[in-house]
Amino acid sequence: MSVDKDALIKPRLLRGFRDYLPEQVIARQKMIATIREIYERYGFVPLDTPAMEYTETLLGKYGEESSKQIFRFVDLEGNDVALRFDLTVPLARVVAQYQDLPRPFRRYQVGPVWRFDKPDPGRFREFIQFDLDTVGSDSMAADAEILSGICDTMEALGIERFRVRCSNRKILNALIAFADVDSRRATHVFRVIDKIDRIGREGVRQELTRGRVDASGDVIPGLGLDERAVSRIMEFLSIAGATRAEVLDAIDELFHGIPGARQGIDELRRIDEYLTALDISEEKVVFDVSIARGLDYYTGPIFETILLDAPEFGAVFSGGRYDGLVERFLGEKIPATGASIGVDRLLAALLKLGVVALRPSTAQVLVTVMEPDRMVEYQKITRQLRLAGINAELYLGPERSIRKQLKYADRQQIPVAVIVGPDEFARHEVSIKDLREGLRRQGEVSERSAWLKARFGQVTVPRDKMLDVIREILGQDARGVRG
Amino acid sequence: MSVDKDALIKPRLLRGFRDYLPEQVIARQKMIATIREIYERYGFVPLDTPAMEYTETLLGKYGEESSKQIFRFVDLEGNDVALRFDLTVPLARVVAQYQDLPRPFRRYQVGPVWRFDKPDPGRFREFIQFDLDTVGSDSMAADAEILSGICDTMEALGIERFRVRCSNRKILNALIAFADVDSRRATHVFRVIDKIDRIGREGVRQELTRGRVDASGDVIPGLGLDERAVSRIMEFLSIAGATRAEVLDAIDELFHGIPGARQGIDELRRIDEYLTALDISEEKVVFDVSIARGLDYYTGPIFETILLDAPEFGAVFSGGRYDGLVERFLGEKIPATGASIGVDRLLAALLKLGVVALRPSTAQVLVTVMEPDRMVEYQKITRQLRLAGINAELYLGPERSIRKQLKYADRQQIPVAVIVGPDEFARHEVSIKDLREGLRRQGEVSERSAWLKARFGQVTVPRDKMLDVIREILGQDARGVRG
Repeated sequence: MSVDKDALIKPRLLRGFRDYLPEQVIARQKMIATIREIYERYGFVPLDTPAMEYTETLLGKYGEESSKQIFRFVDLEGNDVALRFDLTVPLARVVAQYQDLPRPFRRYQVGPVWRFDKPDPGRFREFIQFDLDTVGSDSMAADAEILSGICDTMEALGIERFRVRCSNRKILNALIAFADVDSRRATHVFRVIDKIDRIGREGVRQELTRGRVDASGDVIPGLGLDERAVSRIMEFLSIAGATRAEVLDAIDELFHGIPGARQGIDELRRIDEYLTALDISEEKVVFDVSIARGLDYYTGPIFETILLDAPEFGAVFSGGRYDGLVERFLGEKIPATGASIGVDRLLAALLKLGVVALRPSTAQVLVTVMEPDRMVEYQKITRQLRLAGINAELYLGPERSIRKQLKYADRQQIPVAVIVGPDEFARHEVSIKDLREGLRRQGEVSERSAWLKARFGQVTVPRDKMLDVIREILGQDARGVRG
Repeated sequence: MSVDKDALIKPRLLRGFRDYLPEQVIARQKMIATIREIYERYGFVPLDTPAMEYTETLLGKYGEESSKQIFRFVDLEGNDVALRFDLTVPLARVVAQYQDLPRPFRRYQVGPVWRFDKPDPGRFREFIQFDLDTVGSDSMAADAEILSGICDTMEALGIERFRVRCSNRKILNALIAFADVDSRRATHVFRVIDKIDRIGREGVRQELTRGRVDASGDVIPGLGLDERAVSRIMEFLSIAGATRAEVLDAIDELFHGIPGARQGIDELRRIDEYLTALDISEEKVVFDVSIARGLDYYTGPIFETILLDAPEFGAVFSGGRYDGLVERFLGEKIPATGASIGVDRLLAALLKLGVVALRPSTAQVLVTVMEPDRMVEYQKITRQLRLAGINAELYLGPERSIRKQLKYADRQQIPVAVIVGPDEFARHEVSIKDLREGLRRQGEVSERSAWLKARFGQVTVPRDKMLDVIREILGQDARGVRG
């Protein structure tokens, strides 16, 4: 049956969606495995929840105002449903629904979330989040674990120059009192403070007062705060210190007697003590009063991670403590603290920093096919490699010439090729080609051993030496699937 | 802010959806990692595509008739969109859209799909599939790879008693000619044949003719075939042989001269030759003419895998060759072959067979907290374990008594607990408890070495021996995160 050309469907994606081709998925899977390994080391356990929930579950009974940003529809049974827009609300539902979960419940979840935002380069309507949260503990030890895990994660991912900045929402609330600002405007003030990295101190001052005009000519309205409030906020934003303890002392001095400040400072002091016990240096986690994290729901420590050599990616791993988690479901508050990674953004940053490289394949060896009639023999060779734990691809493409098959291996970044033609068959041999350095350096090495030669070009060895030579080239102790 | 009780939202799931609690996700992640490892050994690469696509992409231009079974809606931009119901159609779109993908394109994809079926125990509206396909090769070597991978996967998952049954749609089409049945009824006939495991030969005969009444009293209408057709089909279904080659010889004998049969038999003969080269035994992959795979789109070899000790789970890993893949998009046929695993069903089967056990945590050590005021010390101990590559949970729950904390460890199936009280602190020691066998066997062993004692109960050792003893108990060579 052939298809009418008019009936053809154009292969395309919805706006704001994207495919992840193999090179991206390979890198992402590896990154996620690393993060998972770190948090499992801390005793976190994985959770998975449906993509779709009752809209009411996700938005709350009175959540209609934010409904524009989500994928929401009526299903065939008439239910008002929506795709999850984060992994926190589903966690809250789970905690409320399964009351015999361990307390605290340290869980991680990785999966897509969906938001109907305006698509942008770098902003998608479907994106993957990696969330980790500790629910049911009000101990600062839980926050210290999250922070320590962030540092371990960054290091495990190969990033040495990062900084976790940490503040406390209670201290920010005290700032509102200190500056004598109406507490209903607190969130607006926090959102302005949060921009300090991008717009600078002067920009913050303008947005707190009369507003400003940004680089593209857009007018950003100001909050209209009075000079006294603004100068107090700016004084607060000047707080700095060489150590975490010094920052806390400076806050303490400025906020002496302001209600609420004490508890926030004590929380951070406890975190400092724990981080010091955990050997987390003053360079890795700093106390920085200029971070505010825009979201409403934080109630205690807040933190965000920036990459010192790629600050343009902003906060790549951030979170904080929030206590209202299950209130929507149970009417009680349960303390929780956690953090979230925008997986795609972090991966993009790792690529930019060169600590991750894209590889289109995980195959280690391409078994080329010079004589298609002897496919059975090529299969036996491939099988032997696989049983030895080596990822081996048997060439099944359209090219007949070995040169073109090697070009394919090269394009797929497969490091080793096995070539067996009439001569090799006759002598029970195989030729092995190192494609990483081989093509370039071939010929440079001549009199050294076959092993060394194999490292830099092509070597022909008896069939029963094939595994040894390939393992040597791959520089690994590949173990067999079947032991 | 406290919440009005009337405003509380009941924590619940949509019908047909489910949460995966940690014990399930831990087991599933491990299973998926194993399958992935096997297919990466064959050179398959991962792909990921959006959850949502244009409905036209998923169903085709004239696909309205099947639209009832999917989650379909109009998005805020007015697009007719739907959640993917399989991973094959998105693969087709990807192959059509990115023309410079390698050929053949061996890809795997694992992720949820959504169908609006009637929910059932064991049938959900969201479920996870693991698909692998080779697109762009018409060589039977590609099919042989899939089959060989199925066998490797089963063995890597710890299943020894399984059987892959293999047939060929071309042979089934020849059967339609042989039995002189109208070819438009072919799919109906195949669907009846496919039930033979469940309803037996007599049931098949009845459904091919006048119909039957099933165990629950429901009337299953028959196809009304004539006696000659039915006896030919039954004759075909009697084909058997001790080896794959014998089965092919028997088909050849029965179908001598029937158009199309030749090619189907040759394909299977080639597969047999390849499987033999790959050392896949006659017990693992059999040729069985009684499987038909209901789906319309198969065009060549078809296969399914059953668990000999859990046949009630049906086909857990099945697929076949299909050539119409990208026709909807490009108007040309591209050969493809692949298979699919219902991840949840396979996991349920593995649990039933006892080759997988559910564990609520991956933590290996619980560091208990006897003196909360010395939290810093407990953190240092926990840190030491983590840096040594041991998954260690610091107890942050509500219980003060060590007995209850140990009970928690037991419930979480954490095998080792570390206990440090005033005596241990004073002497720079830690007590280590083996909770796997310890609680039961405590006291049985007395005079043997501390190491042995640690295996079966509790032992107190200097702090600097802690790692050695715990590693001994865990019986592993745990390596550090930081080397």
